[in-house]
Amino acid sequence: MRFSRMVSKTLRDDPPDAETASHRLMLRAGLIHQVAAGVYSYLPMALRSLRKIESIIREEMDAAGGQELMMPALQPQELWDQTGRKKAFGDNMFALNDRHGRNLVLAPTHEEVVTNLVKANVQSYRDLPQILYQIQTKFRDEARPRAGLVRVREFDMKDAYSFNADEDSLDESYQAMAEAYQNIFRRCGLPVLMAEADSGAIGGKDSHEFLLATDTGEDTVITCESCSYTANAEKAASTIPKLLSEQEQCLEEVATPGIKTIAALAKFLTVHESKTLKAVFYIADGEPVFVTIRGDLEVNETKLKNALHATDLRMADGEEARSAGLVAGSASPIGLNDIKIVVDLSVTNGNNFIAGANKPDVHYKGANYPRDFEADTVADISLAQPGQLCPLCGQTLESTKGIEVGHIFKLGTFFSESLGADFLDAEGQQHPVMMGCYGIGVGRLLAAAVEQNNDENGIVFPAPIAPYQIHMIALNINNNEVFEVAEKLYRDLELAGIEVLFDDREDAAAGVKFNDADLIGLPVRLVVSPRNLKDGKVEIKGRTDSESGSVALDDVLVSVQEVLASLAK
Amino acid sequence: MRFSRMVSKTLRDDPPDAETASHRLMLRAGLIHQVAAGVYSYLPMALRSLRKIESIIREEMDAAGGQELMMPALQPQELWDQTGRKKAFGDNMFALNDRHGRNLVLAPTHEEVVTNLVKANVQSYRDLPQILYQIQTKFRDEARPRAGLVRVREFDMKDAYSFNADEDSLDESYQAMAEAYQNIFRRCGLPVLMAEADSGAIGGKDSHEFLLATDTGEDTVITCESCSYTANAEKAASTIPKLLSEQEQCLEEVATPGIKTIAALAKFLTVHESKTLKAVFYIADGEPVFVTIRGDLEVNETKLKNALHATDLRMADGEEARSAGLVAGSASPIGLNDIKIVVDLSVTNGNNFIAGANKPDVHYKGANYPRDFEADTVADISLAQPGQLCPLCGQTLESTKGIEVGHIFKLGTFFSESLGADFLDAEGQQHPVMMGCYGIGVGRLLAAAVEQNNDENGIVFPAPIAPYQIHMIALNINNNEVFEVAEKLYRDLELAGIEVLFDDREDAAAGVKFNDADLIGLPVRLVVSPRNLKDGKVEIKGRTDSESGSVALDDVLVSVQEVLASLAK
Repeated sequence: MRFSRMVSKTLRDDPPDAETASHRLMLRAGLIHQVAAGVYSYLPMALRSLRKIESIIREEMDAAGGQELMMPALQPQELWDQTGRKKAFGDNMFALNDRHGRNLVLAPTHEEVVTNLVKANVQSYRDLPQILYQIQTKFRDEARPRAGLVRVREFDMKDAYSFNADEDSLDESYQAMAEAYQNIFRRCGLPVLMAEADSGAIGGKDSHEFLLATDTGEDTVITCESCSYTANAEKAASTIPKLLSEQEQCLEEVATPGIKTIAALAKFLTVHESKTLKAVFYIADGEPVFVTIRGDLEVNETKLKNALHATDLRMADGEEARSAGLVAGSASPIGLNDIKIVVDLSVTNGNNFIAGANKPDVHYKGANYPRDFEADTVADISLAQPGQLCPLCGQTLESTKGIEVGHIFKLGTFFSESLGADFLDAEGQQHPVMMGCYGIGVGRLLAAAVEQNNDENGIVFPAPIAPYQIHMIALNINNNEVFEVAEKLYRDLELAGIEVLFDDREDAAAGVKFNDADLIGLPVRLVVSPRNLKDGKVEIKGRTDSESGSVALDDVLVSVQEVLASLAK
Repeated sequence: MRFSRMVSKTLRDDPPDAETASHRLMLRAGLIHQVAAGVYSYLPMALRSLRKIESIIREEMDAAGGQELMMPALQPQELWDQTGRKKAFGDNMFALNDRHGRNLVLAPTHEEVVTNLVKANVQSYRDLPQILYQIQTKFRDEARPRAGLVRVREFDMKDAYSFNADEDSLDESYQAMAEAYQNIFRRCGLPVLMAEADSGAIGGKDSHEFLLATDTGEDTVITCESCSYTANAEKAASTIPKLLSEQEQCLEEVATPGIKTIAALAKFLTVHESKTLKAVFYIADGEPVFVTIRGDLEVNETKLKNALHATDLRMADGEEARSAGLVAGSASPIGLNDIKIVVDLSVTNGNNFIAGANKPDVHYKGANYPRDFEADTVADISLAQPGQLCPLCGQTLESTKGIEVGHIFKLGTFFSESLGADFLDAEGQQHPVMMGCYGIGVGRLLAAAVEQNNDENGIVFPAPIAPYQIHMIALNINNNEVFEVAEKLYRDLELAGIEVLFDDREDAAAGVKFNDADLIGLPVRLVVSPRNLKDGKVEIKGRTDSESGSVALDDVLVSVQEVLASLAK
């Protein structure tokens, strides 16, 4: 591609409102163009990268036995009412009416449609298993689109669905997809974290996320360096060091004038925060729920939601808390009646806590469970944190920020039961089909790759997904020799099947060309200049090399092929 | 692909409500699955065909200098208000609100977004010309989706847009696209008609449609066998034989009791219909328009709309006609005041017409233009018909039914002016960019190909776009020798890069397998059977061959390659 003919232009300055590196760099390098909040056009170079990613995905899906199809975005709302997911998605789903007033939605995912398709085509265990996939456009009305292609409202996804006769077969499909995903990210040149994830309300027993580690990621992964344990923050378990057991004290009021927070309370009474009880008040599916947890820990709302089997969970507001008889700054499970109480496991591993008294400026000391208050539910509802201990090997946990780029999920029979997708087994017995679903956000993967791979000068594309392999600059292209050598090299490289972005601009200064090459970030840069040509040479430099080398004109093709081969390893 | 593993099933019986061959056959062969009215999933075999079509399109677009990008479906309505096209599309456009109440549309085409994109990237004549294209999903809320993939509400299109500095450059891009389109259809194995088409209200001066001839097509093309003239019915001109000029008669009333139609009038008065005047009453942009045309001709509403420079045209209803003083069955331009009158050219080529008198059961004879009535506009507004004469060479015109699969269109500066997409010429003068747009309906092309290529047993896929090249049937696959030979052949063919659908089903009878092969319609069928294997042979048959041949086992690969090579020609 000739740079002079390329429709997209690079921007010299950072665009306003682009806070993350990938957003900023993809706009500056002319990869994307914004159409609306969270809605972008992919310009030609971004599309080339996406096609490479898609092609890797397709090969690995096919190798794992997947069959590619294509399902529509426009779907009858009725189908989503059948599974209850119209309500579950709520404002996140785009809904519309057609000219006849029929209710339609724009699909954020395709379980409903693919299950109906399988229902129409699969009758017998002989037709199973099936892995069906598509690379298709999804719509999701995100409340806060952000970070360029990371969180958008229209996006391309590879979504795959497995259909299995039993758990063992589902395990095999799940395992095949997990391996395919590892292959995909490896082949894209992107190191990935595979983390245990929450399997949610619908879910079967397993779920894993794939994340690219980057400081600007909005997801947190808890990892153990000494064993394989990796889980996202919502799912992660941890071992909390037990407190020393003390002789049980009596419950006793203590004046705590003006004390409203755990930190202030611990300081005022000169105890560690782990000796206090934190109180949090929630509304779960419309019902009030009082939660207590050790003062040094945080509530993991996903674990709490699962413990309550709730579909909707939110913090209660001040008015709701007051009307339940709670006193802000001194809320307490002690003496609380007619409200569901959830106690974190941590509260059972210690005694003589400082707790609220539901009176202004007063707390209790010597609070003990279950002596002083009851629980409707005792469960692990705490957020694992770095510094706590690995639940598998007992070593210290660490935490990493990342961007989720893939998710695999055992669905069980939720959709097949809702939509009546059954099959007959070898004995003629009818069963709902077991399902799994497996997604990769294609556009997000590109953005995450850029977020993970850049420096102060621009993008550093992993070679397998770079829009072109070579960025060739002709300096002083009005010089006849430069023109002829550069044109010949361009032809020879393209004939050899090498993808070249050829900066043939007559009106751009050398500095502009070098800056654009760093900004766009292709793996290898070639420079044809009058100075090098005097020695019959061309300059060659990898994007991350600090120094450039030079190579004789006749050896350029071979050198380029060698460098590209080494990058492919 | 093993037939036994394929998710889609063939249907033995015709599905209800599928009226056209392509709709019926694509459902029966397991190519598509309906999700809603005019909304389909593409099953794996259809997707394979589509990918082949897309790949041919992409190669030809790239060869013509096109740059591929990808624009979103979700767009701010505001952008469409700027060009007035929200109103123009009306109910045909899907509109929706996001969670913040902002008005969005689902794009039926991308002129607005691509013009904005070019506005942001093109400043100078040096950046022009540009040809940008995408293969992307469009949405159109058709009033009556029909014929399977022919008229749908969600569909994939290749849409290209050219941006040019002047008319000459636009002509070049237009010509390059016309040639690319001819190449695309030829390479897909589909003979195509390129017809002059109406360039509509927005348009610049040229527009051509590409149609596949088929009896069930909803478009009509007027062609001349003896010269190159080809135009769609909306656009086609024709030479109407002049009537013999008679001596001018006086206007005279004649009783026509109970006569309401042209046919009845001509019969009653024993004259040819060409001696009568037909009256049609329209509402154009809210204003009444009276149209008169020779009784043997029909009004071409597109030509009428263009003659009136109207954006909205519809027939008036009975009440509107009565309140304008028109009498049904005897409507007439004679004596009509205060209404715009349009007279077809045909009326000026004849005299002494029978015309209405705006009185029940009475007509005039001896009606002459302009003696007896005036015209606000005289124009060619007649529908060209087979049997009329070619406007270029004077030979008799014919008519063909077809399905429109492509359209190229000079847009001029409508969009660049509406959206402010200007460029500076070499003298520093600012001009709006000239534009052209160029579309191919990808899914519709597949449906039209099936509509054009089938027989009583099923689809007859043109080889370049068949889902697989070979349909290999193993008869009696439980026979060890059949199993081993078929499996080896399957491996060898795939290793040689030949795409094989291998009917390896154990539980399907020979008749079922043969019927499925004819239904799916791949170009070449191979049969491995115990009978042929006795002679060390395999049966080979082209989809349209009446007889099958046989080929020695060792020669199968070479024979298949020869047959495929001959089909590729």
